[in-house]
Amino acid sequence: MKFVRNQWYVAALAEEVGDGLLERTVLGESIVLYRTLDGAVTGLANRCVHRRFPLSEGRLDSAGNLVCGYHGFTYDPAGTCVAVPAQQRIPRSARVPTYPVVERDRFIWVWIGDGKLADPARIPSLPFLDDPGWAVLRGMAGVKCRYDLLIDNLMDLSHETYLHSEWIGTPEVAETPTTTTTDEDACIVWVSRHMENVPCPPSYIPSMAAKGFSGKIDRWQDIEYHAPGLYLLNSRIAPPGRPPAADGEDSHAAHKKIVYAVTPSTAGTTYDFWCVARDHEVGDVEADTRGMKSQAAVLGQDVDALNLLEATLAGEPSGYQELSVNIDTGALAARRMLARLAEAGERVPQG
Amino acid sequence: MKFVRNQWYVAALAEEVGDGLLERTVLGESIVLYRTLDGAVTGLANRCVHRRFPLSEGRLDSAGNLVCGYHGFTYDPAGTCVAVPAQQRIPRSARVPTYPVVERDRFIWVWIGDGKLADPARIPSLPFLDDPGWAVLRGMAGVKCRYDLLIDNLMDLSHETYLHSEWIGTPEVAETPTTTTTDEDACIVWVSRHMENVPCPPSYIPSMAAKGFSGKIDRWQDIEYHAPGLYLLNSRIAPPGRPPAADGEDSHAAHKKIVYAVTPSTAGTTYDFWCVARDHEVGDVEADTRGMKSQAAVLGQDVDALNLLEATLAGEPSGYQELSVNIDTGALAARRMLARLAEAGERVPQG
Amino acid sequence: MKFVRNQWYVAALAEEVGDGLLERTVLGESIVLYRTLDGAVTGLANRCVHRRFPLSEGRLDSAGNLVCGYHGFTYDPAGTCVAVPAQQRIPRSARVPTYPVVERDRFIWVWIGDGKLADPARIPSLPFLDDPGWAVLRGMAGVKCRYDLLIDNLMDLSHETYLHSEWIGTPEVAETPTTTTTDEDACIVWVSRHMENVPCPPSYIPSMAAKGFSGKIDRWQDIEYHAPGLYLLNSRIAPPGRPPAADGEDSHAAHKKIVYAVTPSTAGTTYDFWCVARDHEVGDVEADTRGMKSQAAVLGQDVDALNLLEATLAGEPSGYQELSVNIDTGALAARRMLARLAEAGERVPQG
Repeated sequence: MKFVRNQWYVAALAEEVGDGLLERTVLGESIVLYRTLDGAVTGLANRCVHRRFPLSEGRLDSAGNLVCGYHGFTYDPAGTCVAVPAQQRIPRSARVPTYPVVERDRFIWVWIGDGKLADPARIPSLPFLDDPGWAVLRGMAGVKCRYDLLIDNLMDLSHETYLHSEWIGTPEVAETPTTTTTDEDACIVWVSRHMENVPCPPSYIPSMAAKGFSGKIDRWQDIEYHAPGLYLLNSRIAPPGRPPAADGEDSHAAHKKIVYAVTPSTAGTTYDFWCVARDHEVGDVEADTRGMKSQAAVLGQDVDALNLLEATLAGEPSGYQELSVNIDTGALAARRMLARLAEAGERVPQG
Repeated sequence: MKFVRNQWYVAALAEEVGDGLLERTVLGESIVLYRTLDGAVTGLANRCVHRRFPLSEGRLDSAGNLVCGYHGFTYDPAGTCVAVPAQQRIPRSARVPTYPVVERDRFIWVWIGDGKLADPARIPSLPFLDDPGWAVLRGMAGVKCRYDLLIDNLMDLSHETYLHSEWIGTPEVAETPTTTTTDEDACIVWVSRHMENVPCPPSYIPSMAAKGFSGKIDRWQDIEYHAPGLYLLNSRIAPPGRPPAADGEDSHAAHKKIVYAVTPSTAGTTYDFWCVARDHEVGDVEADTRGMKSQAAVLGQDVDALNLLEATLAGEPSGYQELSVNIDTGALAARRMLARLAEAGERVPQG
Repeated sequence: MKFVRNQWYVAALAEEVGDGLLERTVLGESIVLYRTLDGAVTGLANRCVHRRFPLSEGRLDSAGNLVCGYHGFTYDPAGTCVAVPAQQRIPRSARVPTYPVVERDRFIWVWIGDGKLADPARIPSLPFLDDPGWAVLRGMAGVKCRYDLLIDNLMDLSHETYLHSEWIGTPEVAETPTTTTTDEDACIVWVSRHMENVPCPPSYIPSMAAKGFSGKIDRWQDIEYHAPGLYLLNSRIAPPGRPPAADGEDSHAAHKKIVYAVTPSTAGTTYDFWCVARDHEVGDVEADTRGMKSQAAVLGQDVDALNLLEATLAGEPSGYQELSVNIDTGALAARRMLARLAEAGERVPQG
């Protein structure tokens, strides 16, 4: 799958950009991220104009300028070179490109493509990631696979049954059909799987207990995928036969919002930023620990599988014809959307 | 050297295929090997029809079917998909190729090529490998070299003098000329070196003692190479001047039959399956231990040399003209035979 | 940058060639170096004529001949094969190329190119490297970069300020302009930076104390680069305002002569042979220890930076336009000289 340019991508968790310099390669472009003196995040092309040394190896001076670590070429946050060793005159062309950057919902988003098209209103809104009413775990994993394999993985959760059976997979996940809807203009794919009166997977039993119930559950998985890179899984578990009220009231259920921001790095590597937000056991450190343990295990299984799949595909002839079935409907819709966006270089309308 | 297709190759030692799944890549084809409920070994193409995940990462279910570890596509031993998640209908094309497999003489042989041509009678017979009258050591080493370098190595044992002098090499090995015979129809090359009244190499002294003699020996090395991949070295040591009787009686000599099954894996990697069978000290654990130690050392020296040679050749321009001498006669005959088989795609007549 | 052939290159420190065999790859050519019975260093192409096994894996016999470790082909120091296993007749073509080798100033120089053009008088003279009046530290570092990146690094010492500030870099190095002179016929580039009344960098304070002064210094850096591979930095520190006398007398100053012999190995790897000679604290073990510590640190910083730069450039599209400023004058002169020598295959006149 080609890269999709002229898009916002998550390049970092907000807390990853601290006092120093952070390098991220997004769609093959190496970017150095740092905070200016006022705390705003800046993104510059990570290549000194002089000898192409990575600027991320340099340091910030007391004026908030970025000093190259090899020969000291110094850049302001607009990318303009403001100092060159041993001479006063600074060549007019001494300038590194900047990237549009937005810090929102504790993600750092960068725009890859034509900066004039960068409209922050197109960034998917994820307010629960910075809301005290939600407990949020977060992290990032590097995956050694082309990004569309990770999208495939996320769009078809039937793999939970086989890859994650000790944590979140039960036979019913693979057995239950899904419904898929798309909005081609807004570039969104929804995939829903509603399981009724099914066993609770091991990782969700404590959530259930926290809400005061036990035994079988209704379990809903509602995916909302914003192409190219933002994936949101709305997970709901509740006692059987108790859907949300007509007015939406659903306080008897336990909800999780699981975000994956899938950012292509190189042709064969991908950043997998993740957040798991829950509306129960907020402030409960033990629940955080349990959640981290489960998420680390599940993520590790996905990363291992995807690394292996990439290595397998990379060693095979191209042109192989996959076989797709009903469970792939959502992933195929996502692929078609990505192909359309990539090939046309089309703008994604405001979502 | 090109791969030779339409041939049987050793893919595993029988004991390597136990309760689980074993992956082997033979002539570039990834195969998953396992035992069905009746104990027979099955070989399937190691690629799920759905998303190409390696089936060797899956598991066997209680019916003896193979379940993909990613999304649960399930295959019977004939390669037919018998279950797909979340739907009853199974696409007719959901089928993975099978490989002809024969378990014989404690080797697992697979046929690479057109399955209709697979005739088990063409597998070289090695009954001593499963005969209580012989003590057999066995194992497998992966070598990071193109397969023909390993064939070269085995066909010219003069290298024992230089590479294996502490174990099986004496000056006389390199000094003694060989005779080479071929049967182009049966695809066999024989190379013989008969050394008379020569010192015994260190690894063979205990065998000599077990037969009740000491001092100098007659030492015969009779190679029988079945192209493309089966190599048998008949080793005979005896007191000087006591050849086998006219009726073949030779109980005063110590015999070893040393088998190497050379199986190309990828262009630059090769499986080296080996067996060392002896007709003396059968059931003697100490002799087994000594034999393993010697074989491990010799094999390690060969693997190190071949890994280095492959890395050297891979970094060099092609078209280099080697210089060949008398000792290379057998190896050159083998190369010609391999080139003929590879280029013509010719069937090897029953051997 | 292309390789420059028909040149002398340092292939080893003299002490690296001891009783055994030493492999070095120079301009992509693998060479085995060893001492013959009379102690002279010989260089042979590291490839047996038989099966191309690296001769450096073999051994020297009691006659001083080199025996291949695989099948025993044996070569005299002129590269002529003198023994082949199992036959008396030695093919006339059994001969490996030799390399002109000169041991001088405790370096082993080899000539890469047409041996008929190899004139030892063209080797730059470095007598202080083998002079009891100088204390000399020496070593070799392998760098994973194309060789011209190391030349760039050495020709522009303004990087000391940024990369080596804890050891030898002060702000004044980057601030002080340089003068560059070239002799295109002799293939020499001189770059001089004379800093007056400046702070002494940490690594040089003990030298200053040894000469009985403290506080600010005059610090001179006079580079003499002999293309393609020999770099000499004459470092002088002295009390401010006390230049050498008209007759050259300069015993109040501390001098270092820092040699880097830059030898291309492969397209992306380079040998960095180094010597640090000083005319003070000669025979002082503690000064040796201090010197090694500083040099190891500085060299490690350079190696890390160059490895990173090479990896960065190797992953980028070609055709990128660097921006050069005044500090690059010397490096650009060196690059032009190298390009001229490489492209014309021109002989370097006696230097």
